Amino acid sequence: MRPSQRRPDELRPLRFTRGFTRHAEGSVLVECGDTRVLCTASVEARVPPFLKGQGKGWITAEYGMLPRATDQRTQREATKGKQGGRTLEIQRLIGRSLRAAVDLRALGERSITLDCDVLQADGGTRTASITGAWVALRDAVDGLLARGELASSPIHSQVAAVSVGIYNGVPVLDLDYAEDSAAETDMNLIMDGEGRFIEVQGTAEGAPFSREELDALLALGAAGIRQIQTAQRAALGQ
Amino acid sequence: MRPSQRRPDELRPLRFTRGFTRHAEGSVLVECGDTRVLCTASVEARVPPFLKGQGKGWITAEYGMLPRATDQRTQREATKGKQGGRTLEIQRLIGRSLRAAVDLRALGERSITLDCDVLQADGGTRTASITGAWVALRDAVDGLLARGELASSPIHSQVAAVSVGIYNGVPVLDLDYAEDSAAETDMNLIMDGEGRFIEVQGTAEGAPFSREELDALLALGAAGIRQIQTAQRAALGQ
Amino acid sequence: MRPSQRRPDELRPLRFTRGFTRHAEGSVLVECGDTRVLCTASVEARVPPFLKGQGKGWITAEYGMLPRATDQRTQREATKGKQGGRTLEIQRLIGRSLRAAVDLRALGERSITLDCDVLQADGGTRTASITGAWVALRDAVDGLLARGELASSPIHSQVAAVSVGIYNGVPVLDLDYAEDSAAETDMNLIMDGEGRFIEVQGTAEGAPFSREELDALLALGAAGIRQIQTAQRAALGQ
Amino acid sequence: MRPSQRRPDELRPLRFTRGFTRHAEGSVLVECGDTRVLCTASVEARVPPFLKGQGKGWITAEYGMLPRATDQRTQREATKGKQGGRTLEIQRLIGRSLRAAVDLRALGERSITLDCDVLQADGGTRTASITGAWVALRDAVDGLLARGELASSPIHSQVAAVSVGIYNGVPVLDLDYAEDSAAETDMNLIMDGEGRFIEVQGTAEGAPFSREELDALLALGAAGIRQIQTAQRAALGQ
Amino acid sequence: MRPSQRRPDELRPLRFTRGFTRHAEGSVLVECGDTRVLCTASVEARVPPFLKGQGKGWITAEYGMLPRATDQRTQREATKGKQGGRTLEIQRLIGRSLRAAVDLRALGERSITLDCDVLQADGGTRTASITGAWVALRDAVDGLLARGELASSPIHSQVAAVSVGIYNGVPVLDLDYAEDSAAETDMNLIMDGEGRFIEVQGTAEGAPFSREELDALLALGAAGIRQIQTAQRAALGQ
Amino acid sequence: MRPSQRRPDELRPLRFTRGFTRHAEGSVLVECGDTRVLCTASVEARVPPFLKGQGKGWITAEYGMLPRATDQRTQREATKGKQGGRTLEIQRLIGRSLRAAVDLRALGERSITLDCDVLQADGGTRTASITGAWVALRDAVDGLLARGELASSPIHSQVAAVSVGIYNGVPVLDLDYAEDSAAETDMNLIMDGEGRFIEVQGTAEGAPFSREELDALLALGAAGIRQIQTAQRAALGQ
Repeated sequence: MRPSQRRPDELRPLRFTRGFTRHAEGSVLVECGDTRVLCTASVEARVPPFLKGQGKGWITAEYGMLPRATDQRTQREATKGKQGGRTLEIQRLIGRSLRAAVDLRALGERSITLDCDVLQADGGTRTASITGAWVALRDAVDGLLARGELASSPIHSQVAAVSVGIYNGVPVLDLDYAEDSAAETDMNLIMDGEGRFIEVQGTAEGAPFSREELDALLALGAAGIRQIQTAQRAALGQ
Repeated sequence: MRPSQRRPDELRPLRFTRGFTRHAEGSVLVECGDTRVLCTASVEARVPPFLKGQGKGWITAEYGMLPRATDQRTQREATKGKQGGRTLEIQRLIGRSLRAAVDLRALGERSITLDCDVLQADGGTRTASITGAWVALRDAVDGLLARGELASSPIHSQVAAVSVGIYNGVPVLDLDYAEDSAAETDMNLIMDGEGRFIEVQGTAEGAPFSREELDALLALGAAGIRQIQTAQRAALGQ
Repeated sequence: MRPSQRRPDELRPLRFTRGFTRHAEGSVLVECGDTRVLCTASVEARVPPFLKGQGKGWITAEYGMLPRATDQRTQREATKGKQGGRTLEIQRLIGRSLRAAVDLRALGERSITLDCDVLQADGGTRTASITGAWVALRDAVDGLLARGELASSPIHSQVAAVSVGIYNGVPVLDLDYAEDSAAETDMNLIMDGEGRFIEVQGTAEGAPFSREELDALLALGAAGIRQIQTAQRAALGQ
Repeated sequence: MRPSQRRPDELRPLRFTRGFTRHAEGSVLVECGDTRVLCTASVEARVPPFLKGQGKGWITAEYGMLPRATDQRTQREATKGKQGGRTLEIQRLIGRSLRAAVDLRALGERSITLDCDVLQADGGTRTASITGAWVALRDAVDGLLARGELASSPIHSQVAAVSVGIYNGVPVLDLDYAEDSAAETDMNLIMDGEGRFIEVQGTAEGAPFSREELDALLALGAAGIRQIQTAQRAALGQ
Repeated sequence: MRPSQRRPDELRPLRFTRGFTRHAEGSVLVECGDTRVLCTASVEARVPPFLKGQGKGWITAEYGMLPRATDQRTQREATKGKQGGRTLEIQRLIGRSLRAAVDLRALGERSITLDCDVLQADGGTRTASITGAWVALRDAVDGLLARGELASSPIHSQVAAVSVGIYNGVPVLDLDYAEDSAAETDMNLIMDGEGRFIEVQGTAEGAPFSREELDALLALGAAGIRQIQTAQRAALGQ
Repeated sequence: MRPSQRRPDELRPLRFTRGFTRHAEGSVLVECGDTRVLCTASVEARVPPFLKGQGKGWITAEYGMLPRATDQRTQREATKGKQGGRTLEIQRLIGRSLRAAVDLRALGERSITLDCDVLQADGGTRTASITGAWVALRDAVDGLLARGELASSPIHSQVAAVSVGIYNGVPVLDLDYAEDSAAETDMNLIMDGEGRFIEVQGTAEGAPFSREELDALLALGAAGIRQIQTAQRAALGQ
């Protein structure tokens, strides 16, 4: 039995609030149960030095957690003087996943920065960030299209993410914090709209996992991602 | 005429959402017009090294701004590797102002950290932070009282803050960003529930100001703070 | 009774030594009683990036304290790897106050950096820094005029600063360390040559202060600043 | 055809030099083709603060690359003042993978740090690091057993890693730099001696990958890891 | 001919002002021509962690230069966020040289920190720092003796330093900045009261130097140091 | 008797392995007994900002130690976030010494960086680094000559270094760690091919040293350097 009483293959309630703040070109509050992440997309008419003059754009991401997004207050990374390894790992993952969905040449010499800031954490903040950031990215690009700054969309696929894991010996979908901290195995799946994998990251937190367990987790995650992608499209009014 | 069409002595709509997030002992979203700050109060059963063993508690504050809280994206302080001078100045001010309202000995060997994170900025983020943090502090202390961890409240006064300034030659209350960036003089007032000053910070951004202008600003601010304090009490159900 | 036996409205002996070091365009040792600050003005023929190509100059300040300027040795900020919040706050204040006295366009594309280094501290180092830095700035600008690099002075007003506070219930002028560390209220006033305010920063260290107390402090400070400005002009041989 | 003329399922020559340096409790130079990593295991009789007094040990890892391990000189992280995101990600992965093989309670209150320093890079440095670090860890633990500091080995399984990827549309094993930088998909597999997964990390560098491709890569990697584990045991004289 | 018209073996005027600032246990302004360094000695009743509980004391030094001690303003190390290589090298040299003169066991569990801050630079700041710091150290230790905190002096020898170099092909003593920046060879000598060497640091800035040149420099420096040591003793009233 | 049974004037076995790694333009593993340093020379077609457009090149060095090069593991400087004073001092010395051997104008607008990374330490790492770096520099320059990028060699002299010291009252050559950590006096000599001094750095670790001792050390070191230079030339096939 899951702590949340959910069935093994049941997602948490998923909600997108577009336009959550007013300055960003895309601003989406994504809520997966009690996990709430504010994803903003900021468009800037310049690219990092390594891309200058190549006629290509760039998609990057930054991730942060408010100090009291968690049960125990965590130290603010700005006061520590650096981002931790976990933060860097997550923001590299978000950026990489969204770049997989965008034709950077079609974007032109522009950067879009996805800032994913966790207001409240209950497990799955990295997958929620990716899921929400894709919607914010869409809003930012739709704005560029609407203003005529782009003639066609450089986004060629849909991106969503979910976690799966083995909890009390049972493969379960979309782990919350109570499950995540006790899971034997934890896997994050990121997939495109055609059901192909953009990223697979499975970790044996406790005991190593067999090929059979891996297969069960992949199937569970793929089914969950299909539901999430339906919700993303609904949020965008499609 | 003010850009927002407000009268010179008119506050922006002020709203407090208590319990905005679930982990913190106090969690208040304060909105002053389009400025929105999440103020959380975190109680910890320890004090900084310089206070160890003195039977006293501590109140401190940290301030941050999400990168896209502003019209142009600002660099995340965690990636820069340090908090800027403005941030340090503001968080020192918030902490100092709230300590003025608390009997640290009556608090016992506890720390309460007020995290003020700006989700959306439109001028007056430091005064909104102080105003909201006081409500979050009350919620955290009320929790300690309710759980019997404290017998009586160590908070002996109410704290609220507002900005006043001279805009187009006219003293105005509660400046938004459009006014703030064009004001000749900018003043932040922090007052207690008895109408006394906790902090007065006036700066001639453009031209120096006369004693008469200072008097006008002080009067305008004191009237505004009385309204804000009424709203704080209403939010707390008093 | 003040620890120094001074009357409530009595300044400490104030002394300016111009040309204290030989390399800087302006170099003034200012002594307010036992507080001694070396203020140097350095002229450079370039401006910060954000001002490039605008035909305007820049005035900025840096503040430091020698490790043993104080009774207890303080850690050197260069070894800590960063300037503390207090340092940043003070140097921002010095720079802002002096910019209020200068027509940056008339200065041309030049920077003047005021370095205020405290050799010995006994309270009031930030106000002494401002008072001394203005004299150093004058010397640097007079040099530019003498060498024909500027046709007329971009300095349009005189700037001086003093602290006032409530000590043992009595408003007093120009607090030394013994008073400062015990004061209920501490206020720094920065005024121009016409008696107008450039900056007012009042803080309730202990108890909040009333409007009557504020008025008394403002009057005491204004009178003190008039004496300081007379001393500044005398030091410059006017 | 692979640039190295290898068959798709062919590993690069793999060599372990134990006792490569003399100070460390375990010191192994691992060579996978032209990739050479020095893995040292350092035993210390203390644990990190978060484990103090729990009767458990700790395994951790650090990763570095000599500035000219690569074709173009990279900036030394010690002069940059911080480890980059890639470095942190890799060393977290190495530490996590080896902890999966060790009973930390049986290790007692000891730390073993695995330093993996790349002397020469030609792709696959993170998997070579894990493979080599496990051998160094064995040597360090065997020393503890030989000196009677441990009665039985806390290492309960064998750990090895390999990369697989899709290069020119073909799944290949153990990518070198030429393949790695051109691969569409890159996957790192870490497995135990029973053929179970400790970590699976697959990334679509170019195009997303299908379930069929994922299955092919998993099979290819599992076969490669069996060979690597045979070589590890041979190096240890088993 | 030397720029300063001095004979090759002529020191610059040397002056010690003891008690230059009032807080430090030793405070000496040393002036070697236009080079002026404030050397303070701070006594603290604790030792660094690596010496705890060994019944020994510690002598250490820190070195700094005010930004405008030099002809061109240099960036403040506190704003750069770290001490440069030159600074670290000099402060390590000062500390090491003074430790050579002190019986650390006889000092007891105390630290004495020598802060050497250059107010004005004209070459030879590191040797002036050592020369002045020894006088400040004596004053600090004499205070400990006078207050009965030490029964006998732990200082067993006198320490002084001077620079010598080859300028325009001629060995010269006590180089000023004009000579230093043009010298082919630059050597710093640190000697004790018995004419023995504590440190010899010779560098070929331009052309390598022969054994004969080295001998000439050593003789010139030894003679200079005897004069400096006489001046040190005179300053201390001996 | 020396711990290593060597005669006082006996060097440790010295070995150079050229082409130790394959990417760098020069790559030399130098072994002095148990001290092993990998010295790579990296040629880049650019110069630091302060040399831009002057038609001159630059030679610089960086030094590092692997964490377990030493008997006790030392903290990695990349994780500390800065290079220590000892590291900076050594790399400044290496760079300065090699620049003394090169006509920077004849090098053209190129930088050569010598990275000296200690794989195993047993005393004398800085002198071994200089000795090995000169061989690596030669290999890099020979490559430029061979590829026709330079018409004639900018290296005008040979550079080698050795340590000498007073151990148990006896002057000895080429100290290993056991001697170095117990020596009364420690001196590093760096000389050119004509037997002239590039750098002399002598430090009284324990007791100050006399002129006679200094002379003995200089003679011992000069004889050792002649042998080392013979070995350098042999390694280069001359």
